[in-house]
Amino acid sequence: MEIENEFCGIAFRCVVLIIFETDLQTLKIALAQLNYHTGNFEFNTSKIIDHINKAKIDGADLVVFSELSVCGYPPRDFLEFNDFVERCIENVETIAKACTGIAAIIGSPSKNPKLEGKDLFNSAYFLADGKIAEVRHKTLLPNYDIFDEYRYFEPNRNFNIIEYKGCKIALTICEDLWNINDNPMYIMNPMDELIKQNPDVMINIAASPFSKSQIQSREHVVIDNVTKYKIPLFYVNHIGAQTQLIFDGGSMVLDKDAKFVDTLNYFSEDIGFYELDIKSKKIKNLKPVSRKTFSSSIEIVHDALVLGIKEYFRKQGFKKAILGLSGGIDSAVVLVLAIEALGKENVRVVMLPSRYSTEHSVNDAIDMAKRLNVEYDIISIEDTFNTLEKTLSKQFEGTPFNVAEENMQSRSRGIILMALCNKFGYILLNTSNKSELAVGYGTLYGDMCGGISVIGDLYKTEVYDLVKHMNAIEELIPNNIVIKAPSAELRPDQKDSDSLPDYDLLDKILFQYIEERKSPKEIIASGFDEAIVTKVLRLVNTNEYKRLQAPPVLRVSQKSFGFGRRMPIVAKYLS
Amino acid sequence: MEIENEFCGIAFRCVVLIIFETDLQTLKIALAQLNYHTGNFEFNTSKIIDHINKAKIDGADLVVFSELSVCGYPPRDFLEFNDFVERCIENVETIAKACTGIAAIIGSPSKNPKLEGKDLFNSAYFLADGKIAEVRHKTLLPNYDIFDEYRYFEPNRNFNIIEYKGCKIALTICEDLWNINDNPMYIMNPMDELIKQNPDVMINIAASPFSKSQIQSREHVVIDNVTKYKIPLFYVNHIGAQTQLIFDGGSMVLDKDAKFVDTLNYFSEDIGFYELDIKSKKIKNLKPVSRKTFSSSIEIVHDALVLGIKEYFRKQGFKKAILGLSGGIDSAVVLVLAIEALGKENVRVVMLPSRYSTEHSVNDAIDMAKRLNVEYDIISIEDTFNTLEKTLSKQFEGTPFNVAEENMQSRSRGIILMALCNKFGYILLNTSNKSELAVGYGTLYGDMCGGISVIGDLYKTEVYDLVKHMNAIEELIPNNIVIKAPSAELRPDQKDSDSLPDYDLLDKILFQYIEERKSPKEIIASGFDEAIVTKVLRLVNTNEYKRLQAPPVLRVSQKSFGFGRRMPIVAKYLS
Repeated sequence: MEIENEFCGIAFRCVVLIIFETDLQTLKIALAQLNYHTGNFEFNTSKIIDHINKAKIDGADLVVFSELSVCGYPPRDFLEFNDFVERCIENVETIAKACTGIAAIIGSPSKNPKLEGKDLFNSAYFLADGKIAEVRHKTLLPNYDIFDEYRYFEPNRNFNIIEYKGCKIALTICEDLWNINDNPMYIMNPMDELIKQNPDVMINIAASPFSKSQIQSREHVVIDNVTKYKIPLFYVNHIGAQTQLIFDGGSMVLDKDAKFVDTLNYFSEDIGFYELDIKSKKIKNLKPVSRKTFSSSIEIVHDALVLGIKEYFRKQGFKKAILGLSGGIDSAVVLVLAIEALGKENVRVVMLPSRYSTEHSVNDAIDMAKRLNVEYDIISIEDTFNTLEKTLSKQFEGTPFNVAEENMQSRSRGIILMALCNKFGYILLNTSNKSELAVGYGTLYGDMCGGISVIGDLYKTEVYDLVKHMNAIEELIPNNIVIKAPSAELRPDQKDSDSLPDYDLLDKILFQYIEERKSPKEIIASGFDEAIVTKVLRLVNTNEYKRLQAPPVLRVSQKSFGFGRRMPIVAKYLS
Repeated sequence: MEIENEFCGIAFRCVVLIIFETDLQTLKIALAQLNYHTGNFEFNTSKIIDHINKAKIDGADLVVFSELSVCGYPPRDFLEFNDFVERCIENVETIAKACTGIAAIIGSPSKNPKLEGKDLFNSAYFLADGKIAEVRHKTLLPNYDIFDEYRYFEPNRNFNIIEYKGCKIALTICEDLWNINDNPMYIMNPMDELIKQNPDVMINIAASPFSKSQIQSREHVVIDNVTKYKIPLFYVNHIGAQTQLIFDGGSMVLDKDAKFVDTLNYFSEDIGFYELDIKSKKIKNLKPVSRKTFSSSIEIVHDALVLGIKEYFRKQGFKKAILGLSGGIDSAVVLVLAIEALGKENVRVVMLPSRYSTEHSVNDAIDMAKRLNVEYDIISIEDTFNTLEKTLSKQFEGTPFNVAEENMQSRSRGIILMALCNKFGYILLNTSNKSELAVGYGTLYGDMCGGISVIGDLYKTEVYDLVKHMNAIEELIPNNIVIKAPSAELRPDQKDSDSLPDYDLLDKILFQYIEERKSPKEIIASGFDEAIVTKVLRLVNTNEYKRLQAPPVLRVSQKSFGFGRRMPIVAKYLS
């Protein structure tokens, strides 16, 4: 159909030539789903070049890397440093030199040559013949939740496909494919422009962070694009983690009928190798392998958290973790994850009982440490707490025991754990869950201490789901820990339920408010008591100040606490 | 000139009518520079209505309020809650009803009726005859430093002046006037469009946060606009503070020759009242008053910080502050600021000596507390520190005294101060300065505790400037405190200079890196030793993790630590 439209003059001759060539032609495409380290140019560049060389040996015509692969994603405000951007571009030039006899697509910022507009583009470089052959820029710049791309980048406004070895490539970057829903966030669609130039294939380079629902959303998006534009799609995602953000990989190849030709590994590096028949647009998977599949969404979350811990340590050169093991469920879950990520030889636990700790708490914690065969200490906080009480006896004289004494205990534990960190080089793993963080049921500088919050994006009920998954084959977490009523044990016979609604109820309210951003009216209308809803929302909003000083949280939901949720502190709304 | 172009048909008749009217016409404009509370609709709306009524009594035709006045600025992610936006719009409607016999311009989000693009606009509502007469949207959405407006709002693309009582008003919002420099951040200029419709006057409603250089920048911007467009400008800014952000006010009126007719108060609410002769475009100040002027930039910073503290407390309903008074200069300065903001009866200080505290430190602190007549306690941390050492003796056996013991002292102070907060309802003022925060010379959960960081955006050398200003009339801060060498006193004879370059040198390097984002090469080339520059930049970049858990910092520079500076943690760049 399209050829008929061009049946005249020069255009006609070109078209015939292309048809002649494409009759015989295939393009061998390698997808390199790799783990980059933000700002570590030497590491990223040598990894990219290694994979270009390997792909060349394997006979690839083109190897594709993910978004901002040269500098790592997200570079955040490093992009405001001209030196950083220049290092990016220097490294692109170095990588280009390796591209002889093979082409590569890599991601890097580029400079906007125009005076007007922001100084940078988020770009995909097409490297061939030892040079930068083409540069394409990202059009749709995500600027919601954890994304800040419009902070740095000017959107692209020019649309041109790339021709390489007779193949017309519509090259886009991540979000560029994401504007196809009922309430589009952007006023245009880059593929609507590119499709006018009759591309043979879409290639999208991405850095799409993980969340529980993201894998499915991503699949819908690629299917919707292929269904709409009717050409195959090669989609390359980032894998790894950068502090809070976990990148799950799962790069995809879809044929023109929107059937999946291949999906790369989740949570580990992977390479795919394909042959695209340019004329028929059929795709052959040249190196099919069977990969890990997941049986439940909690299994996926589990693997995401393990990767998140692993990367936080490895990329910073840390080896050893420490955590307080209370005999409760949260620290138990964190311990299991930490062991999987770091190895039991690199994890140490400390039980820090006080006069309010129940015997079963300490015993359950010891039982667990023994089951998992990790080093443990029992360090009572009694003396520290007693001394603090004595130290403050004059000031506190005549006042009743209250949150001050409760927090002193929690902070004594914090001091001791941090002292062990400072003495021996451990990183303290924070064990707060999302329900606690949401309502401020935790002590700032006490149990809220830590280098990274492991389960801060899991509601308490989700923590129980994770335990079920962990204990499915073997009782890693003693059943005693699982069945007991949650308690902070900071006063006699304290239970979480003294201060909070049951977690089943609480989490449902929290989810509607935090993830769905529903109004009090809507939440009440969905079947909850008005007084409880009002109290819970008020707790969430008046505890922003605590979360501002919380450790970074490994993000597994669509709305995690941290820089993806930016709330005022000095404010009065539902509070 | 413009009138001749319209000499035909209906347009001609209209123009003659307008000329006839404007010959006689003036517009009385009131500027209301007010302090709003984010999300507190009842408070904001009743304040706005009060001022509409007052302006009406005073004979104003139009009263102008600042950007997003209905909800307070910045509302941040509250804008993602539909309930919040609907409350904004309901309150706009309530305010509109008060606008009979007077018009008003107020700021509020509005909903984007189109499906494509973001769901909201940042809007200026023109209210008249008891109704919403017109709505105009912000075109240029700042999305750098502390600004996130593109996160929420769709940019305006339609340009129409507003005609009211024969006066043609070019109504814009804050950033809309800011795209006139050599490296424009945006590809267009809203006033270039509006000027084509021959407005008589520009009105800009703003929420422009304070920084040391902002007052001057803002003056340049308004002068440049008036010089370019040759019509008067009424500019209304917000005043107050919202956690980190301080809004200084200083609303301005400029005549068509870019001469200042008036500048409203800095750091307090103020109302201006003017008569604009529509034809001649001359402006009369109907209620001229003399206002406070400033003799130095450090005096301005001083007033900004006092307002910042005051607002943090008042808007959250807190009254009383506490701080640790070490005998060093940082806590001394914070004490003086706190007393000015809250009154000495609301400030309590605690000296927390250890075995490493010098006698002069405690004595100097006592001297200062007595001079300023504030309640003080001396609470030794010796017992707590001893007990902690004993508690950890088994684990620490055979290890040399190191940063673990240093931090234990700092954290013991943190616990005690927080215990007093929890017991008596104090808010702990953090006393870290920007130099310390930059290089990580502070203890997380120790001296880095606090509800708000008062001087975290002042380099150490600027803290000394502030002391000079404070002590100019009376020696509020004992000279002993001013002249001693800075020390954390966490080990025998410790001095800051043992670990860090002299602050004179350090601060210059930090400023070039943090504020100017210069490269190591450029900083070295400006006359600094390579080894020192490398060390300092490395310290800055490896301590991002500490700053992530620091209290919110009152922002007085163009690049403050906090949400205006968004750095990766797990990264390797200059580190």
